[in-house]
Amino acid sequence: MSVFTNTFSFEILHRSKKSNARVGRITTPHGSFMTPAFVGVGTNGALKALGHDEAIEAGMDLMFANTYHLMVQPGEDLIREMGGIHRFSGRDRPIITDSGGFQVFSLAYGSVASELKSQGTKKHSNSVLKITEEGVKFRSYRDGRTIFLTPETSIGAQKKIGADIMISFDELPPYHIPKEALRSSFERTHRWEKRSLEHHKQDPSDQALYSVVHGGIDPDLRKKSCKILSSMDFDGHAVGGSLGKNRDEMIEMLSYTIPCLPPEKPVHLLGIADLPSLYSSIPLGIDSFDSSYPTKAARHGTLLTEQGTLRIVSGAYKEDPRPIEEGCPCRACRTVSRSFLHHLFKANELLGLSLASAHNLSYMIRFMDRVRQKIILDAV
Amino acid sequence: MSVFTNTFSFEILHRSKKSNARVGRITTPHGSFMTPAFVGVGTNGALKALGHDEAIEAGMDLMFANTYHLMVQPGEDLIREMGGIHRFSGRDRPIITDSGGFQVFSLAYGSVASELKSQGTKKHSNSVLKITEEGVKFRSYRDGRTIFLTPETSIGAQKKIGADIMISFDELPPYHIPKEALRSSFERTHRWEKRSLEHHKQDPSDQALYSVVHGGIDPDLRKKSCKILSSMDFDGHAVGGSLGKNRDEMIEMLSYTIPCLPPEKPVHLLGIADLPSLYSSIPLGIDSFDSSYPTKAARHGTLLTEQGTLRIVSGAYKEDPRPIEEGCPCRACRTVSRSFLHHLFKANELLGLSLASAHNLSYMIRFMDRVRQKIILDAV
Repeated sequence: MSVFTNTFSFEILHRSKKSNARVGRITTPHGSFMTPAFVGVGTNGALKALGHDEAIEAGMDLMFANTYHLMVQPGEDLIREMGGIHRFSGRDRPIITDSGGFQVFSLAYGSVASELKSQGTKKHSNSVLKITEEGVKFRSYRDGRTIFLTPETSIGAQKKIGADIMISFDELPPYHIPKEALRSSFERTHRWEKRSLEHHKQDPSDQALYSVVHGGIDPDLRKKSCKILSSMDFDGHAVGGSLGKNRDEMIEMLSYTIPCLPPEKPVHLLGIADLPSLYSSIPLGIDSFDSSYPTKAARHGTLLTEQGTLRIVSGAYKEDPRPIEEGCPCRACRTVSRSFLHHLFKANELLGLSLASAHNLSYMIRFMDRVRQKIILDAV
Repeated sequence: MSVFTNTFSFEILHRSKKSNARVGRITTPHGSFMTPAFVGVGTNGALKALGHDEAIEAGMDLMFANTYHLMVQPGEDLIREMGGIHRFSGRDRPIITDSGGFQVFSLAYGSVASELKSQGTKKHSNSVLKITEEGVKFRSYRDGRTIFLTPETSIGAQKKIGADIMISFDELPPYHIPKEALRSSFERTHRWEKRSLEHHKQDPSDQALYSVVHGGIDPDLRKKSCKILSSMDFDGHAVGGSLGKNRDEMIEMLSYTIPCLPPEKPVHLLGIADLPSLYSSIPLGIDSFDSSYPTKAARHGTLLTEQGTLRIVSGAYKEDPRPIEEGCPCRACRTVSRSFLHHLFKANELLGLSLASAHNLSYMIRFMDRVRQKIILDAV
């Protein structure tokens, strides 16, 4: 139980005998859910092409919303006026928001993939105007107005939005960064996280706050980050920053990072929930994972099944009368065949995007159900 | 009861004492529904942005699908192989298909509105290759292949698609047409309809066939069309062709056309279901109306309410916590506020399109419910 909130808690119900995997329960003011959990991404306060009713039907317990996007549209003040994100969006179940930092710095540096392509020569985009000790000044992509994001304004915005779980404001350094610059960014990001926590403490309300572990792919810095953040009263810890240039680098980094975090606090992995990464990182003791991949892939016609991914636009499914996956309880599998879904994609029908998204979300939720059962049986 | 099918019937349950409006029940192999009925348009076999589950939840009894689009994608042969449109699409309720003629001739001549703009100078688009006594040859917009649509191939395609109600293949002459050309088109369209019926009779299966009344805005031709078509064994009659350059012209045309049709057969108005047209034409004795307007308007942010239309993207709804319409049972009104729906549109979220479409469809269905109640009370 956090000392700041009396409504957030994390209980560990079972620790695997085979690994550091654990089954837990996180309780928030909007309900409890089991971990490890897949966290669907509802950037603008709703999953892409899916209603909250459909997400709840699929069994999604926690939704991840993006503070940056919500600040730009409709604005955190409007959300507060409307009674907070739950009442505003009509979702009465747990919600987590990020700090906005990831989006701002992604705009500045681009993704790791685009960086690898550009060999680190890509300069700041002109949307980021200035980064100082105080915070980062950027231009709204929507209306051009200047937004100043600091630990205090990020936490302030997240408080107005009113998510159950917030994330500290941090700096996301690029993958290609000189060692000295990484160290300097590292120190600043921990000062920003401390300021985030201090600002949160002034009025904790019913919200919880997670830190973000940094240090890039430098083992010493990652361990140092865990030490610094563990000494503070965060309700949980998220792992962020540059996770490496491929999955192996990420798993290696996680394998020396997670053991340095306090085992009684929940751990979230930011932005990663592809199946191979889940298989590799759940045994390390990570409790929640957000990713827009399942819904984004769905909109591009890539469907997740136990037999692997299925490209619904492929001619192979043109006359396939079976559901996407036998036994799947999702709306798509209940109501349409692969053949009709193939047709909907070929005919550019929006309904195809909704049905495919419902399936992939359901798949991820059911995948996590099975993982939890395996952990309880000490099989993971 | 048709002499050709034993599963299609139209019963008149009440005739208004105030007008020619009537409440009826149409029975098809996939169920019965009450008339006057609003018929949602599912061009490619599904409503835009709405699943069959949502359409059924909204109370939509009959879906209109477009043979032209289904021939182009996925093709009528595939639909037959998949067990017909009901099994293929997963909709187990009544479906009506058109002949494909409307789309082909619209491509050739454009809409009445664009014609009025062009003063009738617009020539055939190059998608229509040739119109002969036999039929019309056109190029598929999808893959460029030549499709030859005749009364026999249209009915053949509609039989493969397997809708409960089919529509005769007809010619849609442009609004700007010399009197002699209209008469010549008029005669050909009735020969085509006769061939449609004869082709249908060869294997009526469980399908019903409606004629299409033609004659443009010439009262004598319209009356003559009714006389010709009434003498044949159609299961019902649709009113099509150029309906006039505005609503007044259309209502005038309908007012001398409908009384010439056999009162015991159902009458469908093709492509028109805006509220003022419904108010004016239901008292004339029309039983069903298809239109893509409610779902198309929804996708453009125009919502139907008893207080008139509402432009959800307007700033007026930015902070409006009310549902679109108090008391509306639709998914949008149950789950989101005007404020959140406004935000979804501003943020370009697909979910906004689905929710708005669900509302407008529900509105039309409930509007028709009320109309039927009023007819029963002799108030319409």
